Amino acid sequence: MELVVTNALVVTGDTAGTVIRDGAVAVRGGRIARVGTTAEIGRHAGRVVDACGMLLAPGLVNTHCHAADSLFRGLVEDLPLEPWLQAVWRAEGAILNRDTVRLGATLGLAETLLGGVTTTMDMFWHPAETVAAARALGVRVSTGGIFFDGPGIDGLTPAGRLEAASAFFDAHDGAEDVLPACLPHGTYTVGPESLVAAKRLAEARGGLYCTHAAETQAEQAVVAGRYGRSVVRHLDALGLLDARTVLAHCVWLDDEEIDILARTGATVSHNPVSNLKLASGIARIPDLLAAGVRVALGTDGAISGNDLDLWMALRLAATLHRGVTRRADAVTTAQAFRMVTLDAAAALGAADRIGSLEPGKLADMILIDLGRVHAVPLFDPLTHLVFSAAKSDVRHVFVGGRQVVEDGRITATDIDAVLAEVSALAPQIAASLGR
Amino acid sequence: MELVVTNALVVTGDTAGTVIRDGAVAVRGGRIARVGTTAEIGRHAGRVVDACGMLLAPGLVNTHCHAADSLFRGLVEDLPLEPWLQAVWRAEGAILNRDTVRLGATLGLAETLLGGVTTTMDMFWHPAETVAAARALGVRVSTGGIFFDGPGIDGLTPAGRLEAASAFFDAHDGAEDVLPACLPHGTYTVGPESLVAAKRLAEARGGLYCTHAAETQAEQAVVAGRYGRSVVRHLDALGLLDARTVLAHCVWLDDEEIDILARTGATVSHNPVSNLKLASGIARIPDLLAAGVRVALGTDGAISGNDLDLWMALRLAATLHRGVTRRADAVTTAQAFRMVTLDAAAALGAADRIGSLEPGKLADMILIDLGRVHAVPLFDPLTHLVFSAAKSDVRHVFVGGRQVVEDGRITATDIDAVLAEVSALAPQIAASLGR
Repeated sequence: MELVVTNALVVTGDTAGTVIRDGAVAVRGGRIARVGTTAEIGRHAGRVVDACGMLLAPGLVNTHCHAADSLFRGLVEDLPLEPWLQAVWRAEGAILNRDTVRLGATLGLAETLLGGVTTTMDMFWHPAETVAAARALGVRVSTGGIFFDGPGIDGLTPAGRLEAASAFFDAHDGAEDVLPACLPHGTYTVGPESLVAAKRLAEARGGLYCTHAAETQAEQAVVAGRYGRSVVRHLDALGLLDARTVLAHCVWLDDEEIDILARTGATVSHNPVSNLKLASGIARIPDLLAAGVRVALGTDGAISGNDLDLWMALRLAATLHRGVTRRADAVTTAQAFRMVTLDAAAALGAADRIGSLEPGKLADMILIDLGRVHAVPLFDPLTHLVFSAAKSDVRHVFVGGRQVVEDGRITATDIDAVLAEVSALAPQIAASLGR
Repeated sequence: MELVVTNALVVTGDTAGTVIRDGAVAVRGGRIARVGTTAEIGRHAGRVVDACGMLLAPGLVNTHCHAADSLFRGLVEDLPLEPWLQAVWRAEGAILNRDTVRLGATLGLAETLLGGVTTTMDMFWHPAETVAAARALGVRVSTGGIFFDGPGIDGLTPAGRLEAASAFFDAHDGAEDVLPACLPHGTYTVGPESLVAAKRLAEARGGLYCTHAAETQAEQAVVAGRYGRSVVRHLDALGLLDARTVLAHCVWLDDEEIDILARTGATVSHNPVSNLKLASGIARIPDLLAAGVRVALGTDGAISGNDLDLWMALRLAATLHRGVTRRADAVTTAQAFRMVTLDAAAALGAADRIGSLEPGKLADMILIDLGRVHAVPLFDPLTHLVFSAAKSDVRHVFVGGRQVVEDGRITATDIDAVLAEVSALAPQIAASLGR
């Protein structure tokens, strides 16, 4: 064994909800070799991490992010999505190039990593830069070619986009740290032909497909006006919905659209922090769960939610819908936790590799400090994770058995230098909107 | 000067929203003597705290808490308020005495203090123990005699309650760290006679008055059935509403009740974390603000919300109602921040002493680390505080100029010993509900 974590309160996140007190996980070749009690796993050569006083959980999976947009955190405030997006695009157009995308992606992915996110589905211009940022930090990403009908930040033509997306698959074929995808922006910004071409490419290459869908009422009105049908019906009619498709937001759905999602197996990526902040509305998560739709969680970008705190999204997913429906079990604790672990992994078609601590899976693991004042007393580990734990409780993070966060510090990248570079760019970012 | 904090980004929290870059605050006799730029304040003898890279803000004010209930964090889950409360009372009855209340209050107040809360309105049995816990930690509390018609944990009779409440005023007359109050539990648990007697006592002693009100639809139904009127109308008819009254929750209000609150000047303590978790509902905060009702924020107890994170309540207050109303300015950033500072101080009748950094006020101040990944870039300090800052960003806390948190550690109490004591009690707590 190259690494054994011992004496931990292990929340495996497996489908049975297995919890092991005095638990241990042994890692070999970047994968989990054994999971059991510390006594069962026994002594080994290699590195031993004594996790006494800590909880070991699977690395979290964030299913919707625009990491590089962290450059614009807090820049555009107090607007609903549509005018907000116009300002965002103006600022992005003025600031973004390959270098600044890499910088922003590093900033954003570093924040999620410090909070225990080991895999992120990210949609952004110049996805190769996001991959480079992720590799420098040592985390996994799902990303790929962006599809967008208007003039893009990246200067690509519609034909060029398909080519770039195809090249992205070539470049990451067989990679363990990148889950390639095709990422059309949305049905209101990408025409049917490109939407379909992107899906055909994703299918041909075994890739994922993700798009924004049904985020606001205004979006629904635009799409209905243009195509005579709602966003989800439009996607369904074009044959774009299946188990390899992730739809971000889905705030505005009727019952029939929920049935369509259930029938096709598409995943809803729920982004409650962003949806509330941008006044988009509140997604019908209990109804989606009842219909059997897979729901996973996302942070969205820090330009909308102002941070990339997946724990906040988790807490909201578990509480918001109780308040809305007045049912104290509208989203159960276990359902909420799966939205950032196993169900999120399944959304990325990677439930065989990530999302739980089980033998054979990649050793993506987080150690959570149970010595904090808000962690005591602790009656049920899952309740603690969903309702009391915070991003700042994450002390150590391992990806594929490699430690990438140690005592709350990123090990592989000089983050202070990144922050200094972003701060130096901030006046230009503000000036991009005439401030 | 005994203390000068220099080189800070100062968010004064005053009514003008004054922010000072390279700011400084000088403290004399536990009070703020001067606020200005570091250059203006100049050099002094006494202690100098160089706050370069940090934001200086007023200590936060939490207007609704049951600190000692932190002993039961995560014990009773997935129930709506009424059956939940029955289980809570059973556990409380089995566990609580003066010693365990002190222990629980220390646990709870320590958590809020680490998050930068310097004043807490707390409602709990044996309030003298909460005061003792607060004094040991070095924080301010508003608390006092509990009124409750049923058999209480404290063994007091109805007549004994009035006497105890009166003695509490005697004991804390003129204290700078205790804001005495009368605290009837609610209109469904306290009869009109006791409700009125408690208010008369509070009035006679210049004290505050706080009760739970209109938290759930079930509560409204009980009160309507018993008295033929809604909770707020009942309180109004009894003459209990004025600027010295704080009503916790107020989730279920009609337009006329909102007008009653506006007319009488009573404060609504909004507890969104608890209201969502317990499936109580979502308070009409934008309507309350539009009517001119003062709204402040509370954490409620960790037994409902699972932690005492006032930053989470702040973030929710600023975003939740945007999502509900689909108005991106439903609660503005400035309004939300005032709910944990100046408006919360006003709710406690202490806006002349706390809630902002202004000369003459008590030097209750927090220093927030701006070097965290989620704090960069920072375009607007208030936006940062409301939407990106987290409890774990609070590095230093001063109460009356005395440092009570240093680098995220409580200075005056051995918190690890407290956590060990609570953990040792945990099996008994679980057993109180037969687990």
